[in-house]
Amino acid sequence: MLHLKAPTIESYFRTLNILDFDVHPSENEITFTTNLNGFYNIWALKLDKGYPYQMTTMNQMSSFVKYASQGQYLLTGFDTNGDEDYHVYAIPGSGGEATPLLKQEGEKFYFGDLSQSGKDLYYTTSVDNPNFLNVGKLNLETNQKTVLIRGEGGPCDLFSVSPDEATFTFSRAVGNTSEFGYVLVNGEEILLTPSKEHAHRVNQAEYIDNDNIIFITNYESEFSYIASFHISTGAFKKLVEVEGHELSDLTIDKLQQKAYFVAQRGVEDHLYEMNLSSNETIKLDTPIDIIDKLVVGKKGTLFLLGRSAKLAANVYCTTDFVAWRQLTEHKIIGVNSDELTEPEVLTYKSFDGLEIEALFYQPQQENDNGHTILWPHGGPQHAIRKNFSPLFQYLCSQGYRVFSPNFRGSTGYGETFMKLVNKDWGGGPRLDIIAGMDWLNKEGKSTFDKWFCVGGSYGGYMTLLLHGRHPERFKAFVDIFGPSNLFTTIETAPEHWKAADRELIGDVEEDREKLIEDSPMTYIDQMTKPMLVIQGKNDPRVVKIESDVIVEAMEKRGQDIEYLVLEDEGHGFSKTENAIKVYKTMVTFLERYI
Amino acid sequence: MLHLKAPTIESYFRTLNILDFDVHPSENEITFTTNLNGFYNIWALKLDKGYPYQMTTMNQMSSFVKYASQGQYLLTGFDTNGDEDYHVYAIPGSGGEATPLLKQEGEKFYFGDLSQSGKDLYYTTSVDNPNFLNVGKLNLETNQKTVLIRGEGGPCDLFSVSPDEATFTFSRAVGNTSEFGYVLVNGEEILLTPSKEHAHRVNQAEYIDNDNIIFITNYESEFSYIASFHISTGAFKKLVEVEGHELSDLTIDKLQQKAYFVAQRGVEDHLYEMNLSSNETIKLDTPIDIIDKLVVGKKGTLFLLGRSAKLAANVYCTTDFVAWRQLTEHKIIGVNSDELTEPEVLTYKSFDGLEIEALFYQPQQENDNGHTILWPHGGPQHAIRKNFSPLFQYLCSQGYRVFSPNFRGSTGYGETFMKLVNKDWGGGPRLDIIAGMDWLNKEGKSTFDKWFCVGGSYGGYMTLLLHGRHPERFKAFVDIFGPSNLFTTIETAPEHWKAADRELIGDVEEDREKLIEDSPMTYIDQMTKPMLVIQGKNDPRVVKIESDVIVEAMEKRGQDIEYLVLEDEGHGFSKTENAIKVYKTMVTFLERYI
Repeated sequence: MLHLKAPTIESYFRTLNILDFDVHPSENEITFTTNLNGFYNIWALKLDKGYPYQMTTMNQMSSFVKYASQGQYLLTGFDTNGDEDYHVYAIPGSGGEATPLLKQEGEKFYFGDLSQSGKDLYYTTSVDNPNFLNVGKLNLETNQKTVLIRGEGGPCDLFSVSPDEATFTFSRAVGNTSEFGYVLVNGEEILLTPSKEHAHRVNQAEYIDNDNIIFITNYESEFSYIASFHISTGAFKKLVEVEGHELSDLTIDKLQQKAYFVAQRGVEDHLYEMNLSSNETIKLDTPIDIIDKLVVGKKGTLFLLGRSAKLAANVYCTTDFVAWRQLTEHKIIGVNSDELTEPEVLTYKSFDGLEIEALFYQPQQENDNGHTILWPHGGPQHAIRKNFSPLFQYLCSQGYRVFSPNFRGSTGYGETFMKLVNKDWGGGPRLDIIAGMDWLNKEGKSTFDKWFCVGGSYGGYMTLLLHGRHPERFKAFVDIFGPSNLFTTIETAPEHWKAADRELIGDVEEDREKLIEDSPMTYIDQMTKPMLVIQGKNDPRVVKIESDVIVEAMEKRGQDIEYLVLEDEGHGFSKTENAIKVYKTMVTFLERYI
Repeated sequence: MLHLKAPTIESYFRTLNILDFDVHPSENEITFTTNLNGFYNIWALKLDKGYPYQMTTMNQMSSFVKYASQGQYLLTGFDTNGDEDYHVYAIPGSGGEATPLLKQEGEKFYFGDLSQSGKDLYYTTSVDNPNFLNVGKLNLETNQKTVLIRGEGGPCDLFSVSPDEATFTFSRAVGNTSEFGYVLVNGEEILLTPSKEHAHRVNQAEYIDNDNIIFITNYESEFSYIASFHISTGAFKKLVEVEGHELSDLTIDKLQQKAYFVAQRGVEDHLYEMNLSSNETIKLDTPIDIIDKLVVGKKGTLFLLGRSAKLAANVYCTTDFVAWRQLTEHKIIGVNSDELTEPEVLTYKSFDGLEIEALFYQPQQENDNGHTILWPHGGPQHAIRKNFSPLFQYLCSQGYRVFSPNFRGSTGYGETFMKLVNKDWGGGPRLDIIAGMDWLNKEGKSTFDKWFCVGGSYGGYMTLLLHGRHPERFKAFVDIFGPSNLFTTIETAPEHWKAADRELIGDVEEDREKLIEDSPMTYIDQMTKPMLVIQGKNDPRVVKIESDVIVEAMEKRGQDIEYLVLEDEGHGFSKTENAIKVYKTMVTFLERYI
């Protein structure tokens, strides 16, 4: 009867997000970081009430939330407007002002663990060791800080502290694909895996008890698996693997001697339960496709933060491991899940026969504008997954298709596949994308002269490179904080990334020619199509100058170039109003070239 | 162990508020207007989930929310940045864009009722009759508007439409204390009360069925009560009164043939249930002291929006009328209810022996700064009540006492008491305040030379007047949009208030001398104490010029005067950031004079 207006871009981009959550020791309450009030703050909700209440008013993204052992306060990390200099704060258990615990101008403090007694806070910091970081301990009673481990040759990071606080586990990174795991026993660093001979990673380590550690590693394997280490005997044992899947998010229920973990293959996650005595595993059903975090409560309730292509980030919990209760209700304002697009999972052969998986979003037929947006994902060692994307969903509602391939270098397809991007940023991945576009055109799912390219971070880099090397294939480009010159990227990276970047991107001396070949700036003269460049002024990962040079060069030539700089953002859009501004600008820009 | 920071002013003023709510016909869902995202928007929550989700993104205060009969959409009213030109909009039941239904630049549309069939929307509007308003009907199918009643001599307003839509009830105001109730039957306006001879009010009228109306009136009574009117016979009957209490918020449960109503005496509300056959009443317990709204669901669940001095605005529901479930969890961030101040209810004799009730807030002894803030309430036909006040609670946490008397003219003490302010704005009420201060000093609860005065609207007027006439009694003043010149107040009032204002304030010709005597501007030369003036630029009730003249005069004399103008506010602070700015400025200002 009444003709009501359709949802706008505002509705899509006001969809709430959750960055992290934790469960109160009573299991009656959760705390989570969400942008419920238009900015990121910490909120909490009591499970028997369900209504959230605000805990902080800082209006800053927090990097983590973690309850103290009795829930009397909670720990969190804030940076300033996206500068990624995270500091650790304590907040009263009922909310209020944030009291800084670890804070020093220009320095980074990453939370590691809180001792069971609540006396010691373990962390990793850039103080006195910006390149490789140190692991330290803060005594919360005396306020005294002690350095426990010095990073050398690569950054170190703390994993976990033993229940009796006699030992702790940590990692030492060597380049981008090696990160060795250790336990420190009486001052001695004992390797968790049998040897350092072959490159491998240890991603996480948890104590079952004071003597037994279980951890995630890909030692001598294409995919990561769960292994154990016995401190007294030094015995290493592979416990659980899931074929073709990367395991992660190991979460232990000490009471019931169970563990939970996530198995990732490409675009989806699966949840498993593991019996710690028998090492038997059961696959559990989940209401979502992507699992961001698992927390097991002290009484055994399992909580997860997750999302799907059609479901925004929400926290769920289960006690019977069959039925899940949704604790938060984040969704696009006024749009039901069944009105959204479920992406198709496509596979195609690349130029050299390598199999590539991709997601393909299609609009409802009646809205179809015939145009396809290529979305090269960021990372590059990252992946496009069945994640909730208000941008993709909005673009579909406006008639666009979105094509996003997991080109070589993407995660979730094994160690070898992931390493294919190392020192080849502009080679294989670019050709995988071109092959995917050709295949999609051939399949009739897209049209050769109706492509746009939009990407951020490494995806922004790829956008610039495609603009420089394949301008004839696209009508217009949108670059979101993409590196334009790999020499600048390497130079301006945070100190403790430099060792990894040498392996991932290249060495400025040894790989000079390849870095020139793969830098978008090399092809600046061929960038002749309309382009919108978006950059956060405080971005510490891709510094503003990388965007400035491209924009200046194109402006000088009188090219159709638009530049949007966000004064109070870093590498991402933490503020809802900024995100809306960015995506409104982007959609208006694209519309112009349809 | 950890020393965490105490809550700041931000925590207090970020306490969420609820303006209105409604219950979905399914009884499984409520919708409410709250400033959850820092601005007012409409939100909803499903009772079985408890987590709110956003329905609108307009970031504007809405004047009401009302579900359509099947819950397929909801109606609401928005003005623009506090200009009080409300327009009526429809919003999809699952949220989204607001579609205007009744909207015209510079005009007002007040929602009246929605017919049971959902076909007709009844409203009151300023269109074609800015002085006295008209009652109209919008056919939602044809979009046709019909004028049903023309306001004459005083504004008219719609109450309710009969189930068969054959008749409707409405009021015609005559001055400030007379508002006659009518039912329109076959084009004839039938009075609901026996006569218009004595001044009285009809505040609300509801249909029991097509022939029976029950309503609230104070016809031939000091306090309002519930009466019935039988259309066929024209019989009027007094049904229920509660001695010494004003009745309001009559809410009918047709299914169970019950009604609920609120009984107000001075600073508190009480909830009553009434049997519609026997007219017997039972007093029900409530979790709060002040009831803002009652809604009874289609299956009989009772919902209320309410608050107390120590409890913020929240929605509660009950099915057994004993245990109440709290549906929202609004509270001061990081401050538990038991850390707040419960005000003392004081009574004292005024200069002429009249008994005056007052609220008195005291800080914890260890914070006490010895200073008392006088808060003359607004209205003036309004009252200070056991309402939730983040300002009073914050002032207490900072060591101030707050004294707020219900001077003559306040509501909740009978019709005679309320009318004592008519045409005596600056007389009796001012002397009641002075008497209260003297009594408080004598009781040892305050100190003669440690008083401040802070007030808004009529309270701002009283602040200015006390500054002009009793400057020696206060260290400093804060005037929030207070009228400074009663001639201006009368002249610039909305057209449809003019008749009432003549009775309430006075006639510019007949009462000229009294208006001069009671205008703060008359005493401008005696305003010699420090003063902070706060004004919303769009205020349609107390226009900005009223503050400008005071500020200019004091500035010219080189007095200590501070002026804060809010560009995007009207008569109140609808935006959280503005409220924080105002109260921070106020507290900093007061601190200077301790």
